[in-house]
Amino acid sequence: MVTAGESQEADYGRLIVAGADRPGIVATVSGVLAEQGANIVSLDQTTSDPSGGRFFQRTVFHLPDLSVKLDKLDDVLRLRLTEELGLEYRLVEARRRKRAAILVSKADHCLLDLLWRQRRGELPMTIPMVISNHPDLGPDVRSFNIPFFYVPVAKGAKAEAEKEQLALLKDNVDLVILARYMQILSGDFLAEVGVPVINIHHSFLPAFMGAGPYQRAKDRGVKLVGATAHYVTEDLDEGPIIEQDVIRVSHDDTVADLQRKGADVERLVLARAVAWHCDDRVIRDGNTTVVF
Amino acid sequence: MVTAGESQEADYGRLIVAGADRPGIVATVSGVLAEQGANIVSLDQTTSDPSGGRFFQRTVFHLPDLSVKLDKLDDVLRLRLTEELGLEYRLVEARRRKRAAILVSKADHCLLDLLWRQRRGELPMTIPMVISNHPDLGPDVRSFNIPFFYVPVAKGAKAEAEKEQLALLKDNVDLVILARYMQILSGDFLAEVGVPVINIHHSFLPAFMGAGPYQRAKDRGVKLVGATAHYVTEDLDEGPIIEQDVIRVSHDDTVADLQRKGADVERLVLARAVAWHCDDRVIRDGNTTVVF
Amino acid sequence: MVTAGESQEADYGRLIVAGADRPGIVATVSGVLAEQGANIVSLDQTTSDPSGGRFFQRTVFHLPDLSVKLDKLDDVLRLRLTEELGLEYRLVEARRRKRAAILVSKADHCLLDLLWRQRRGELPMTIPMVISNHPDLGPDVRSFNIPFFYVPVAKGAKAEAEKEQLALLKDNVDLVILARYMQILSGDFLAEVGVPVINIHHSFLPAFMGAGPYQRAKDRGVKLVGATAHYVTEDLDEGPIIEQDVIRVSHDDTVADLQRKGADVERLVLARAVAWHCDDRVIRDGNTTVVF
Amino acid sequence: MVTAGESQEADYGRLIVAGADRPGIVATVSGVLAEQGANIVSLDQTTSDPSGGRFFQRTVFHLPDLSVKLDKLDDVLRLRLTEELGLEYRLVEARRRKRAAILVSKADHCLLDLLWRQRRGELPMTIPMVISNHPDLGPDVRSFNIPFFYVPVAKGAKAEAEKEQLALLKDNVDLVILARYMQILSGDFLAEVGVPVINIHHSFLPAFMGAGPYQRAKDRGVKLVGATAHYVTEDLDEGPIIEQDVIRVSHDDTVADLQRKGADVERLVLARAVAWHCDDRVIRDGNTTVVF
Repeated sequence: MVTAGESQEADYGRLIVAGADRPGIVATVSGVLAEQGANIVSLDQTTSDPSGGRFFQRTVFHLPDLSVKLDKLDDVLRLRLTEELGLEYRLVEARRRKRAAILVSKADHCLLDLLWRQRRGELPMTIPMVISNHPDLGPDVRSFNIPFFYVPVAKGAKAEAEKEQLALLKDNVDLVILARYMQILSGDFLAEVGVPVINIHHSFLPAFMGAGPYQRAKDRGVKLVGATAHYVTEDLDEGPIIEQDVIRVSHDDTVADLQRKGADVERLVLARAVAWHCDDRVIRDGNTTVVF
Repeated sequence: MVTAGESQEADYGRLIVAGADRPGIVATVSGVLAEQGANIVSLDQTTSDPSGGRFFQRTVFHLPDLSVKLDKLDDVLRLRLTEELGLEYRLVEARRRKRAAILVSKADHCLLDLLWRQRRGELPMTIPMVISNHPDLGPDVRSFNIPFFYVPVAKGAKAEAEKEQLALLKDNVDLVILARYMQILSGDFLAEVGVPVINIHHSFLPAFMGAGPYQRAKDRGVKLVGATAHYVTEDLDEGPIIEQDVIRVSHDDTVADLQRKGADVERLVLARAVAWHCDDRVIRDGNTTVVF
Repeated sequence: MVTAGESQEADYGRLIVAGADRPGIVATVSGVLAEQGANIVSLDQTTSDPSGGRFFQRTVFHLPDLSVKLDKLDDVLRLRLTEELGLEYRLVEARRRKRAAILVSKADHCLLDLLWRQRRGELPMTIPMVISNHPDLGPDVRSFNIPFFYVPVAKGAKAEAEKEQLALLKDNVDLVILARYMQILSGDFLAEVGVPVINIHHSFLPAFMGAGPYQRAKDRGVKLVGATAHYVTEDLDEGPIIEQDVIRVSHDDTVADLQRKGADVERLVLARAVAWHCDDRVIRDGNTTVVF
Repeated sequence: MVTAGESQEADYGRLIVAGADRPGIVATVSGVLAEQGANIVSLDQTTSDPSGGRFFQRTVFHLPDLSVKLDKLDDVLRLRLTEELGLEYRLVEARRRKRAAILVSKADHCLLDLLWRQRRGELPMTIPMVISNHPDLGPDVRSFNIPFFYVPVAKGAKAEAEKEQLALLKDNVDLVILARYMQILSGDFLAEVGVPVINIHHSFLPAFMGAGPYQRAKDRGVKLVGATAHYVTEDLDEGPIIEQDVIRVSHDDTVADLQRKGADVERLVLARAVAWHCDDRVIRDGNTTVVF
């Protein structure tokens, strides 16, 4: 589900567990939750390989007075999961929405789609700011009552611009979304910002990595164009893929037609990836993802 | 997954649990499995409504010497799940493939697709027999080393034909697949045969219920045609839907074109539904299904 | 193609021809265009049946000084196509964009999508007004610099409301778009308004005709939900279908989830249908359509 | 349409025209056909660029006693299209089915799908032979009453094998289909065989060119896998693309699951490409294709 009604409410929690697979993890997790009075609402679990693989589990549970009991539950989980079984876990209160900053350049389709879905309640997140290296989209953003910051990136002065961006973002957001932001972020920026960064690439990766994918798709004569939402790593267009989709095109379509058709896929794919991330449905597994 | 490699092997089991939701079911099930030495390989769980809804869970587990321990595990589950919690459950050894009879008339596309896939190992089932009300497809079926029985259905003599079919099927199969079988089965037959019956309907139900869906799709000028695999109940074309899919058509397509395009969807949809059923992924929920 | 770059420019024209099929129509049309100095840019043609069927053709051509020569070309076509061959035709200057009014109630997703696309240049039309039976969406519409008229529909006073709507629409628009307008238009209104009316229905017609399709889809347990854009006729949900599409859903989706997923399909399907209509790609053929 | 009923019959012809665009081509072609007594059944036309681009047209026509009149029509077309306008053209009698040889290794899914569709009348072609570098599929092929030739390719002896293949193919076929043939054909072979060669690649080209695409798709964590049918050129996996499609996959799918899901896409994509080619719907345009 793109969104989840009741699971955003008070007293609902999410528990993400990952680590080396071994017998009894599901029983331990569900036993701990039952002992603490929580009722499991939904549970997804997978393992990359039953013998010696990696284990992943996402559990949504209901626990009356969760906010009060959160610290104690965390203590128990640290003991039972981390210390006894060597597993990583993440415990999240569903009512605490993630704070997402959007970085954008001039293309408006992905940005407006996110703003509009957030306003409709389709995305379990808040949007404390939009940052752009062009001033063009300021009025659109502010009409949603969301702050817009114009941070130009002068030639040869990307480091200064990133410093300014970091000053705005640092500790203020839980997620950065590149909604067709046409600048490459440095490894230093990614390390410094300290939160996940999701990008939308306008091709079906790994086809047409890099710049100008629609022109190259036209030249190659493909019959489908696509889009890919992925976590950003230092290796451009190589980060873990969250979601992909495609749309059919034909010899009749010009490069401009491919861009227009592709834009519809880009905004859908990005919106899905963001919704899933904010709902803690996406777990990184090396350079791939598990999406529950 | 259409098929499941290792989960068909010895020592793998599947446990399906359904019933009124209440706190602690997941913990109980996983606890019982852990106590008995089983390792959970995958677990899917859902509830129709967290407060007072219906609970469904499918668990695949690995337990050394499962065949030997099956009866004991069954005893424990009956006590802990049925007697204490009022839940229904089904315990299945993965290595015991379901025995599926195929009923067919003259159209060969769904039949041949099932025969090929079964031969390729894509369907976790055996095919002890094919029954048809026409002799035409006998040579094709027998070339797969599968028995073919010709049971004509004379006008006004359906009861006799069904009696003959039941004599062949009774206790010999775990599933009946209607792969474009153009006769309506009586309620008596369905009650008597005692195993699930899966049908492929050549439309996107509930659109174009009944006969001649492609002609009616053409007349209505739809832009997509589809197919629906569902469990058969006494109410024609009203049984629980397992899987559906569609394909794009245009004004240029004749009724024959719709049939040809639709045939590709029919055989894919039926194959998926059969594979999921045989893998115990489909659970009935009133007149709908949960598909894990 | 959703849109067509150069074919919107000056000196480009579109000629739509329909009628009883007979040998030589394509030759006559292309011959007339060649005689008048026009170059055919693209041509689509089909016939419902080579012997005695209906013939349909859409031709895009380039003719220098088209505006000046339009009347003369029209005279020649009337003589050669209508008088000599008994065919209907429609001659359109591509640079003259259709004027489309949007009728809407409270749901904003289809409306905003059309407004954005029109602003981006994806839809070859102007939007002289939006009319609603609720005041809620006024601010959004006016932020696009488009007039918004609030015409409430009091119980038992639909005739008055329609009179008011007609006063606004009559002679001012070439198309009316119902972007989730939750009122049924009377036959009198349709006759009086005198331009095509396109509706988006939130189901894969003819499944779930009438009200509450997502609830009924949930109850029936379908595995796909869809949307249908169609011309409005007096028979509710029975008009000629222009475009349809679907999206996959599962047992996990609530009715609210179906609505959210369906909303993405609704806006895409409506946008495609409107773009094709405005590009003169859709020709009615009885209760179906030819879409070139 | 995958197939075309009546257009395969006697007295139906297809005319493919390609060349530099200029005013009046459509009028000339349709005029010539009308003069010769032919009725145009369907016509598709496109141009890569209205000013100075390449022109492509496919026309299906009905002409009584076509077989008798074919030579004369050809003479007229040569004069009017080639000599006067510098265009290339191809004139085909629809009733003359293309003769297609299938080359295959061990995987049977694409081969069996083609054999079965051809038997059902879905593919407008004959299959005079199947050639394989493994003997395994002989019995399956011969059960369709089609000759099977086993031509092993010993290490370092590909030239000899290709010589033997050419002796079988030369002048006996109009098309060669590589239905998962796991050997690379030499440039000499392609030049010598003198007919188009269609290959199915088991990825969404240009992603995962070369060997092992499903393993690489798994490693990269893509969310869709696909297949590509293309004409074979000397540059491996670089030839003009005819058709592509994809299917959704998840983190749960193993490489074997990707192969099974991909196999369904491979056989559909190859069957469509072959049907369109045999129906003269595919025109090469440099390293891309126009598909009418």
